[in-house]
This record gives sequence, C-alpha cells and structure tokens, in this order.
Amino acid sequence: MNLMEFLTPLTEVAKRSGPEGTIVISSRVRLARNLKGFAFPGWASKHDRIKALELMRPAVENLPQMKESFSAGMEELDNLDKQILVERHLISREHASKSAGSAVVFSKGEIYSVMINEEDHLRMQVILPGLQLEECWEKIDEVDTILEKQLDYAFSPKYGYLTACPTNLGTAIRVSAMVHLPGLVLAEQINQVIQAVNKLGLAVRGLFGEGTDALGNVFQISNQQTLGEDENRIVDRLSKVVAQIIEHENNARAILLEKKKKIVLNHIGRAYGILSNAYSISSKEALNLLSLFKLGIDYGFFPDVPRSLAEELFLICQPAHLQKMSANPMEPEERDILRADILRERLKGVKGPVLK
Amino acid sequence: MNLMEFLTPLTEVAKRSGPEGTIVISSRVRLARNLKGFAFPGWASKHDRIKALELMRPAVENLPQMKESFSAGMEELDNLDKQILVERHLISREHASKSAGSAVVFSKGEIYSVMINEEDHLRMQVILPGLQLEECWEKIDEVDTILEKQLDYAFSPKYGYLTACPTNLGTAIRVSAMVHLPGLVLAEQINQVIQAVNKLGLAVRGLFGEGTDALGNVFQISNQQTLGEDENRIVDRLSKVVAQIIEHENNARAILLEKKKKIVLNHIGRAYGILSNAYSISSKEALNLLSLFKLGIDYGFFPDVPRSLAEELFLICQPAHLQKMSANPMEPEERDILRADILRERLKGVKGPVLK
Repeated sequence: MNLMEFLTPLTEVAKRSGPEGTIVISSRVRLARNLKGFAFPGWASKHDRIKALELMRPAVENLPQMKESFSAGMEELDNLDKQILVERHLISREHASKSAGSAVVFSKGEIYSVMINEEDHLRMQVILPGLQLEECWEKIDEVDTILEKQLDYAFSPKYGYLTACPTNLGTAIRVSAMVHLPGLVLAEQINQVIQAVNKLGLAVRGLFGEGTDALGNVFQISNQQTLGEDENRIVDRLSKVVAQIIEHENNARAILLEKKKKIVLNHIGRAYGILSNAYSISSKEALNLLSLFKLGIDYGFFPDVPRSLAEELFLICQPAHLQKMSANPMEPEERDILRADILRERLKGVKGPVLK
Repeated sequence: MNLMEFLTPLTEVAKRSGPEGTIVISSRVRLARNLKGFAFPGWASKHDRIKALELMRPAVENLPQMKESFSAGMEELDNLDKQILVERHLISREHASKSAGSAVVFSKGEIYSVMINEEDHLRMQVILPGLQLEECWEKIDEVDTILEKQLDYAFSPKYGYLTACPTNLGTAIRVSAMVHLPGLVLAEQINQVIQAVNKLGLAVRGLFGEGTDALGNVFQISNQQTLGEDENRIVDRLSKVVAQIIEHENNARAILLEKKKKIVLNHIGRAYGILSNAYSISSKEALNLLSLFKLGIDYGFFPDVPRSLAEELFLICQPAHLQKMSANPMEPEERDILRADILRERLKGVKGPVLK
C-alpha cells in the first residue's frame, strides 16, 4: 500500500479544526499496554518480539476502528516514510528507528494509531483536532476494551498496567494537547506559564514530545503522573489546565494588540516579508515565522487569508513532507531552497499585514 | 536662511551620478589651512577664535564659488540642523559640537563647503558624485588659490602647510572616495581588500569617517600620508587604488551571481521582504538592508526600479533627515516606526526580486 496515497492530503489536514481550534491544534490520548508472559520489547529477543507481534498485529488490524487502515512492519517502510509518520505524529521518533519485529497500524483519517513493540508492546493513541481530550479518552478506551478481551495484558492488582518504564505504570495513560502559544512567547510570559504548569505535575514539551524544541511556538502539555489517579481525573485535570492556558494566551494576545500593536505588527510583518521573499529557509526558521503568520491571521491582519493556508505551509515545511514533494533525494541545502520556492509561490497572492 | 529650503532636495541628490556611479557614491578632496599668527582653534581663546573667524568668514563668503551660499555661525544652528549637515557630509561630527567662534559656509548644490575653526582654521572641501578625484582636486585648488591671496597661511618652507594635528602636515590634503562594496562583503573578501589597501598606506573608514562603522557596506577610502608627496601624486595614487577596488567589487559581484545566485537572491529577497513589511526598523538595519536592495537593483533583480529610489531611501533613513520629516521631536523608537512607515509606503509598488 502506498503510504502517501493512504494519508489524508495536507490541504485537508490543514482544514481540520475543533473546539478552541485557534489555540489548540490537537488533543491526544495514548495508552501503553503489555502482554503477560512476554518480555518488554527492549529486553526481548528478536524471536520473542516477532512472536508477540504476530499475536498483537491481527488483533489490532481487526479492530472495527481499523476497518480501513494502513498496516506495516517497520522493516517495510523506508526512512522517508517513517519520518513522514513522525511528522504526522502517528509514530514516535523512537519507533521510526525500529525494524523487523515492530509495526504500525493506523486508521484512514489518522484518528486511531497503534505502535506495536515500541517501548511497550502496545502504544495506542487517538488524535482529534482542537480541544477534545475527553472524546479522545472515550475513543481510545473503546479500542482498549476490545483489545483487552483478546490479549492477555500484564496487569498488577496493586500497581495497575505494567509498563517498560516505571513512569508509565498504573493507568499507563498519556493525555496531551498541542497548543500554539505565540502570544505568551511574544509577551515573554511563556516561562512563567511553563513553571506554573510544571508545578501542577504536568509536563510541557516541544513539537515532537520529550526533549524537542517548541518549534513554531507549539507546545505539548501532558500529564506526568500515571499512578494513583484514575483516567477520568487525569483527563479532567489536563482539560482544565489547558482551558486556563487558552485564557492566558488569549489575554496575552489582547494585551499585545492593545499596548504593543506596532511591535506585534513588526514581528508579523517581518515574518511575512521573509517567508514571501526568501530564496532559502530552514525548517526551524520557517516554522517559527509561520507561527507569527498564523498569529497575524488570527488577529485579522491578513484579511481573506484562510488560517488553513498557514497550517498547510506549516506541515509542508517539515523536512520529510518537503522531501516527498521532490522526485530526487535532496541535501538539507536543497530542501531549504525548495522550501523557500514553495513558500514564495504559495504566498504570492497574499499582501503584507494591515491594521483593520 | 532656512537650511532645508537651501539644501538640494533628497530626490535630486539621489539622482546624482558620476563616473563609476554604481560603486563610487562620491569623491571628495579637502584641504586644511591655518592662519599665521593665530593659535590653532583648539588652543585659542574664544576671543581669538572669533577674531580669526571674522577675518576668514568674509573671504570665504566672497569666493566666486560661494556666490549662492549658505553661511552660518555654529551657534545659529540647532542640533538637528547640524546633524543634517553631518548626514550630508558637509560638516564633520566634531564640527557639529562647535558653537560661537566656528562657522560653516557651503554653496548651492553643496559641491563646495568650508568649515571655519574646526580642528584647523579652515577645512575646505569639494564633493562630486562618482569617481572624480582629479576634478575635486582642481576645484578645491582654485578655491585655495583665491583664499591664499587674501589670508596669510601658516606655512613652513620645510614642512609645508602647518596643521593642528601633525598627521595633516605638509599638503594637508585628504582625498577620499565613498564606495559601496556589498559584493566584497557578501563574498567575505572585504577584509583582504582592506588589508591590501592599508598596506598601500591608505585608510579605509566607515560612512562618517574615522572611527565609524561601514553602515550599508559603504566604505571611505582615503590617503593617510600628507607629507613628502605632492597633491597630484596623492590624487593619482588614490584614483588608481579605487579603480582596482571597483574591479574587485565587480568581479566579486559577477562570481557571486555565477556561483552563488541563490544565496545572493536569498540575501536580497530577505532584505526587500523586511524593508517592505517591517513596522519598526533602526537606522543601522535599514542602511544595511538598503545596501542589499541597491545591489539587487544593480543586478537587475528589480526591473523598472530606479537606482535613485534606493539612494533616496538610504538618505531618508538617517536619523536627522528622518526627524525633519516629522513636525514633532521624536524618540529613537518613534523614529524607527516612522522609518518603517516610509519604507513600506515607498516600496509599495515594488515587487520582490526575480531572476532575469
């Protein structure tokens, strides 16, 4: 099956939106599960990993949620396809380095996705656009309930679900929201917010999770704790914190517009000016400037420009997606040139920011 | 007399061009002269300075070259007017700090200009557009010959013209060319060229002479030595060196275009993008970006854009000229905003750079 043909076209992905969609890009809940009687993937022999995979893969593929799905052993995917899946947040960067003995299965439309033999035997997730953490939890809970009937999970009555890493023990749930916070960054309040969120026992990470940069002012807020609190409380707590972050971001944007209009316009104007005139631009710079372009659209500085244009360019500008647009493999410098060519072309009809 | 009404409008200044005008902005020759029997201005009492001034000023004002001229004691000019004269290269930054006892006289069209009681009693200069060092020398020599008949110069048969600073002793001539060298800067060859020029006993300075930055990639090449060589040889030697620098600059531009077209376009595109979309921009940044815009015009990347537009914006972007465009005194931050407003407005009809 051709991966690119199966994946939702970026133009459509870019148009997806959900509740609080201006700030919350997506919501995600993932569960980690392991099989009783099998070593965790990191400790297992290749033979045992394949045995476990053969047990799990049909169960996952046969889920009603996976009626129309893409399923592949990691050895079947080339590096570029793996990177595409990382950029779509369908597999982790760690899973991309896996080969035979590991697999990925995800549904048409990419709401449901399951990594088999990543760090745990099963890592299943639901992603929805906007702030829909509860909906994500309900959907992944349904998947889990079905799989639990067919697979013998490693479960301790005392600790809950057993996981390869003790930080996931218990509910083994990770609830996260991907939020776009250019206002808090420009207002230099982001560090305060991150500290406050950390104090509540929640983690703030970059665009691709643990240890990654907040490229394009995109932050991932997630629970740290998986033990001693049930899933509904975790989801509820995170939803409330995200609601507060949205409020802070909206406040920051309003105050910036009221008190520092010219400074904000200056940032946004320069970002637009570079995006629409550069002849070479790195992924990192492009994502950071597109964040400001998106903020400009949110502010109404670019009348008639749909927000989805910025979202689509944000997705296209990532290295693997960009490579897919060229017939030949490219060096990073060549990608930077192609990226700039695409941005100039797509921004041709867009005029610089203006005050309403 | 109103200074701004007397000065050539910037639109006209920007259109001036001379031989090798793409690279050589202007040529200048200045002579330092002092009166016998009067202490140098720096050592003289205010009373003596005024006595010397009263002797020199009528002589200067009555020069045929000054038939239509602006003449003012430094105490008659406010700080802003003085800065305007500095930005037009009609007086030095040092002279701008002078008050009663010092004066400036310059001709309509600003070719001839004389500072009275700067570091020396007389500092007379001729500026012409493009590479015209010999013409400058001939013209200032005529002025000097007339003045010498009326004023008793301090002259030593052994050393030549005596000056306040020994580095000017002898011919007391400074021959200089203002050159725009973005190609050598982009090609990272500028330091080599500066070193080579220094080895020939010539100085390379910034836009406003000694101790100033090469803002906007504009360099001032001038002679260091004033003793032991006659004026014609000094002018001739500098002309030859400037001709070589022009050749190096043209070579650098050609090689950049041939081998690093995308990199050059990237620099120029980004410069244009920021200039035409920023809402706040400092003088320094604007001059540096306008240098790249000018290079883009020279390369033909902006068809139908006259070079004089970039020249005019370059002049307007300087702090004092910008302040003159506003009715009220402005803080630096307000100037940065007005500068950006003017740039956006003036670049509205200009499209981004394209390859021919």
